[in-house]
Order: sequence, then structure tokens, then C-alpha cells
Amino acid sequence: MSNPKGIMRLELLHSGKANDVYTTSDPRYLEIEASDRVSAGNGEKKSTIAGKGLANSRISSDIFKYLESYGIPTHYAGNGSTPSSMLVKKADMIELEVICRNKALGSFTKRYPCATNYVLSQPLVEYTYKNDNKDFPQYSDPPIDRKTIVALGIASELEVQFMDFITTRVNELMTDYYATRLQVQLVDFKIEFGRIPSSHGNIVICDEVSPDTCRLIDFSTGESFDKDRFRNSMDDPSMGYRTLLKRLTGEVI
Amino acid sequence: MSNPKGIMRLELLHSGKANDVYTTSDPRYLEIEASDRVSAGNGEKKSTIAGKGLANSRISSDIFKYLESYGIPTHYAGNGSTPSSMLVKKADMIELEVICRNKALGSFTKRYPCATNYVLSQPLVEYTYKNDNKDFPQYSDPPIDRKTIVALGIASELEVQFMDFITTRVNELMTDYYATRLQVQLVDFKIEFGRIPSSHGNIVICDEVSPDTCRLIDFSTGESFDKDRFRNSMDDPSMGYRTLLKRLTGEVI
Repeated sequence: MSNPKGIMRLELLHSGKANDVYTTSDPRYLEIEASDRVSAGNGEKKSTIAGKGLANSRISSDIFKYLESYGIPTHYAGNGSTPSSMLVKKADMIELEVICRNKALGSFTKRYPCATNYVLSQPLVEYTYKNDNKDFPQYSDPPIDRKTIVALGIASELEVQFMDFITTRVNELMTDYYATRLQVQLVDFKIEFGRIPSSHGNIVICDEVSPDTCRLIDFSTGESFDKDRFRNSMDDPSMGYRTLLKRLTGEVI
Repeated sequence: MSNPKGIMRLELLHSGKANDVYTTSDPRYLEIEASDRVSAGNGEKKSTIAGKGLANSRISSDIFKYLESYGIPTHYAGNGSTPSSMLVKKADMIELEVICRNKALGSFTKRYPCATNYVLSQPLVEYTYKNDNKDFPQYSDPPIDRKTIVALGIASELEVQFMDFITTRVNELMTDYYATRLQVQLVDFKIEFGRIPSSHGNIVICDEVSPDTCRLIDFSTGESFDKDRFRNSMDDPSMGYRTLLKRLTGEVI
């Protein structure tokens, strides 16, 4: 199999909770295949949702292209060799999840003194350390302060400032994207960053930007269109993904 | 019962994990009685250690007086009406624990990518939100970023900067105190802050500064002299408290 650039997909490198990552014939690139697998609660709840992989990959690719058009650096490098995959630049991942919240929902309201649906006076950017802590599950993916990130050498102070800036800008751009193209409100999202070795360690957005990594609420009905449908065991968890893809491309799956 | 200032102890206001707090005949003051109760793992492991209350109260009072002599504002107001109590200024507590680490030990090394006993290049000040989360124990006392503290109005940006400064200064002063007077190394400690209503909301150090809120290692033997003896079920958990009190005052209990 080869993608439009003529780069061949080779071996499975890593199988994550929702995506499979493959090496390619060009060592500078990888392919990410979005699967129908879904998990929540740090992997405690697992299932598959038909069509999720295709919808997520299409939406994620479209958002990456949109962000790039506004000068936001991402790892996106084009279509992959299957309809639900994309070609990406290989990066050294920074072991952080960067979360941006416009409204307080989810674990944030259990951790901190903040009512559910509280509208933050300005978007709040937070970091968690990526840690699938099997021995100490209570310490999985813990919040981490910016000063601790720097003290432990996970990222430099300048890199943290850069991630703060880019994440805030992505929030503005994605809020507009989701509102005008998909008629949904962006409540919160998480992104990840990596350093591109062939580009002097420049930081770019990696992984995915999709309904799996955003909280999205339909403007007209107030319905959840993201993974919360699965988290909260709603009737048809695939509905959100199918509706969003239809609104974006007209495709019915 | 009245203390040296002639202020009477009145009713039990609050019984905490290790201390009991009493109202007094002067509404500006409270009395803190240090008990022999000990707990670890957020209250999961409980017991009593004879003499702990007396030792902690003596050491805590002595450290508060020492810090005040260097201009650090604390809630300490004098001896209480019993040998193991102190009189303190009443404060509106800020719901944070402020932790300062010189060397990485304890939960920090389970949360983050940091080896046990790693010596930090400079002291690291971190915050956790005080949250005895019965419904969601996995979210008890979570780390909280400075920006989240400000966004949720738990403390202002200037208050956070003040707590950062005071905590770093207390680390320098207490490191010296423990090393020269008690021959132990200060590994880490936590302090809490409160606002004094009768003093225009000025922030002072509250609660206690004792072997229960510090990690202390004996310089000559490398032995733990703090609550880690109890956490790790060592033979005689009272030894640390008794030894420290003897070194400080010559008292044998």
C-alpha cells in the first residue's frame, strides 16, 4: 500500500487506545490509522463504534489542514494509504497532554472547586503528564504544574510558553471551525506536541484533533457529539461521529 | 483553662487528622492542641504515637518563633493553655497545600518521571488543592497549576507569587534550622496559608510546621525521623519525634 506521495506503509509500530501507527518507506514519516476502537476512563471501558475511525480521520485531517492554513505547525503531511489514515511527520513526543477548557466539565469539576458548566472568564490551558501508571492507578495522567514540567526537563520554559500560545490560538481557530462548519460548540479539547528531529527540534501539534479529543455540544439540541456519549453509555454512541462527518463532507456512513 | 495571655480555651471547633482546634474567649484567636493521633495515605492508615503531640507542638512553636524572628508572617501567637497546644491568630484558610521539595521522594516519584532521591537543581514549589474527595478518591488532594489556582479564584496571582516567595524563603530558613539545631536534613515539607481578616487579609503561614509535615533524614545515620517511619511501618515510629525533641530541648519523653 502506498499513499498519494508514493510513500509505502511498512510495519505496525505501535497500537494505541484508538489509533495504530505504522512505519513507512521514508524514515521521516509515519502513517496513523484511526480505528473504530473506543475507550474511556483511562482504558477501563472499551468497545468499538462502526465508522468512528473513518469519521475521526477525515475530521482530524481537515482540522490539521485548516490549522496549517493559519500558520499553526502540525505533524500533518497528507492523506495516508487508506481512507481512514493520514501521513504524518515523525516526531519525538513530549510526554504531556495539553488541555484547553472554555467551560468546566468532566474530571476538572471533580478535582477542583468548580461547578459543572461553569464558563471560565478566559480559556484555561492545563497540562497532565502522560503516565499509564499500572502500579499506582491513582497517579495515572496527573495534572502537572508548568514549573514542575521545566524542573524535570520534560519541556523547557520557552517550549511551555510556545505550547501555551499555540494551544490558545488553536482554541480560537477550532472554536470558529466547529461553530461555523459543524454547528457545535467546542467545550474543551486536548492536544499533544512533539519535536521534529529533521527540523532542529521545532515543536508541532501531533496525534489527532478529532471528536475523540474534544468535547462538542450541538448548538441547536444541546446534545453531546463526542466521546461523552460513550463515557455516559448513551443510546447510540456513533451518532455524534456520523452527524459531524455528514455536516462536514455530506458523506453518510 | 487559660493560656499565658489570659485567653480562655472554649469549645472544640474542629478535630482534624492530627490536631484539635478550639475557640477562645478572644474571637481573634484559636488554640491548636496537637494530639498523638497519626494517619497516612490520606487517612487510610491510622494509629496513635505516645508523645507525638507534645513533641510536634514544641517543635512547631519553636519553628514558628524562629521564622517570625526572620520576618516570615505566621499565625503563631504564643503558648496555649496546655503543654502540647499553641495560641494562633484566626485565619481564613486558603484551600491549598504548598509543597517544597529539595530531593524527590514519595508520591512525586510515582506521579512524574523522576527517580527516587533525585536532587532537584533548585527547590521546587508545588501546589495541591485540599480535597478530601470521598466520592472520587482518585481525585483527592490533586496537584493544581498556578494558572488554575488563579482562574478558579482560589488565590490571586499576587498571592501565589507571595506564597512562592515565602515558601522558598522558609525552605532556606528551615533547612538551616533542622541542620544546625537537630542534625537532620530537610528533604521536603508542606505548609498552608490563611488570610487574617483583622489584618486586611494579609497572608500568614498557618497550621503546623513539624516532623508531621516535613521529610527529615538524620545526617549521621540516614534514618528517617518523620512520619515516613509510620508510613513504612518501621519498628518504633515514636523514635524520630522523641529524638528530635531531645536534641531541641534536652527533654526526654
